[in-house]
Amino acid sequence: MDSKSQTITPIAVAQTPYRDKFGIPRQPNLVSKAIGKIWLNAPYNQAEALAGLEAASHIWLIWGFHKAPPGQTRLSSRPPRLGGNEKLGVFATRSTHRPNGLGLSVVELIEVNLEPTPHLVVGGIDLLDGTPVYDIKPYLPYVDRVNSASHDWAEEAPQKLTVVATPQFVASFLALKSEVEMSLIEEVVSFDPRPAYHRDQPERVYHVRLCDLDVGFRVDDNSRQATLTNVIHSTEGDH
Amino acid sequence: MDSKSQTITPIAVAQTPYRDKFGIPRQPNLVSKAIGKIWLNAPYNQAEALAGLEAASHIWLIWGFHKAPPGQTRLSSRPPRLGGNEKLGVFATRSTHRPNGLGLSVVELIEVNLEPTPHLVVGGIDLLDGTPVYDIKPYLPYVDRVNSASHDWAEEAPQKLTVVATPQFVASFLALKSEVEMSLIEEVVSFDPRPAYHRDQPERVYHVRLCDLDVGFRVDDNSRQATLTNVIHSTEGDH
Repeated sequence: MDSKSQTITPIAVAQTPYRDKFGIPRQPNLVSKAIGKIWLNAPYNQAEALAGLEAASHIWLIWGFHKAPPGQTRLSSRPPRLGGNEKLGVFATRSTHRPNGLGLSVVELIEVNLEPTPHLVVGGIDLLDGTPVYDIKPYLPYVDRVNSASHDWAEEAPQKLTVVATPQFVASFLALKSEVEMSLIEEVVSFDPRPAYHRDQPERVYHVRLCDLDVGFRVDDNSRQATLTNVIHSTEGDH
Repeated sequence: MDSKSQTITPIAVAQTPYRDKFGIPRQPNLVSKAIGKIWLNAPYNQAEALAGLEAASHIWLIWGFHKAPPGQTRLSSRPPRLGGNEKLGVFATRSTHRPNGLGLSVVELIEVNLEPTPHLVVGGIDLLDGTPVYDIKPYLPYVDRVNSASHDWAEEAPQKLTVVATPQFVASFLALKSEVEMSLIEEVVSFDPRPAYHRDQPERVYHVRLCDLDVGFRVDDNSRQATLTNVIHSTEGDH
């Protein structure tokens, strides 16, 4: 181990609706209906460690890309936002394949709960279920909300898809789950989870796994419209 | 080592004007005149790793509190912002004594330089000179600038002190350094680096070390005014 290396140990673990990397919004705080829980590990699973956190409406999570295959750090990547055509340095993107595999997400703090064991309920989460969390910090508006900040190609949120569901899909869905999960699915698909190099295949059906559901959809790039095609109950492991 | 622990290795090191923890602003992006350099370590000291970073006006640094004594993780602390009277959970503050010792700072990206070796020039830095950096990410306004965010007691920047210098101080200072460093000193002192439990001692002289200077100042809390008292050239190690 390099003398300047350090070991970090999860202080919490994330429980989220995302069972697959496919479908996770590429940034946090976009899919507001994605509700997750952050369960504190010992010795931080005590009221004392969270006292006063409720003063913040939002929090930062520093976490680990635990499902990114080790040894796959690259010096550059091709962000989906640029259509997968342009190569950018790893430090110029939020790519998952990065040195030290650390992720950074701002999420809404909905509730601080001490029972059954200390945990946070958060909104807009973009973490895979089971993700290790290494730190929690309050979002400080006077520091973190940089009004003068700009970015040449990520100033605004990506354009969303219109999501439609056939009456048949809606009936199948509501036989399994409520309208809350239906809204979550629609929001997730609206951010177009397809890889950039898969565009131009309007007949192709993609599958997104959320909670214990597997939802199929396809996308017509001309009309910028996604159609939900089918839903099944699924309890399989990651595929 | 816990099976879920991971080892992180610095990808860069920060070169900053701050030689002591005392004097460092308690948050980044406040002291705009604090210019630093982020020097990339091998194998990331290549143009490829930074390609396209200049699209961002600001960047995130994830770094290590390398001078916080190990084993001093506490479950709670008393933030200076609250006068040092109120005890808050470690995850409710940005305290340095935290599990995994990870810091998070947004800084202005002024320049990406490849010569003599790849490094970034950044403004508003709040890192101690020599701090290890574990990740660099672009600040994405549509994600990181949360307009709906609020915080009960850290919504606005802390109230600054008025800083005055006697003609004698100015003469001594300008014999050693230029007006650029003078502005930096004034900005640093304006954020009141004194520990919360030291207030009410108007005659006490504090010393802040910046670059190779040692600057004395005292503070009158009634008038909210700091007076720069003396400056000497200093090349000593941390004291």
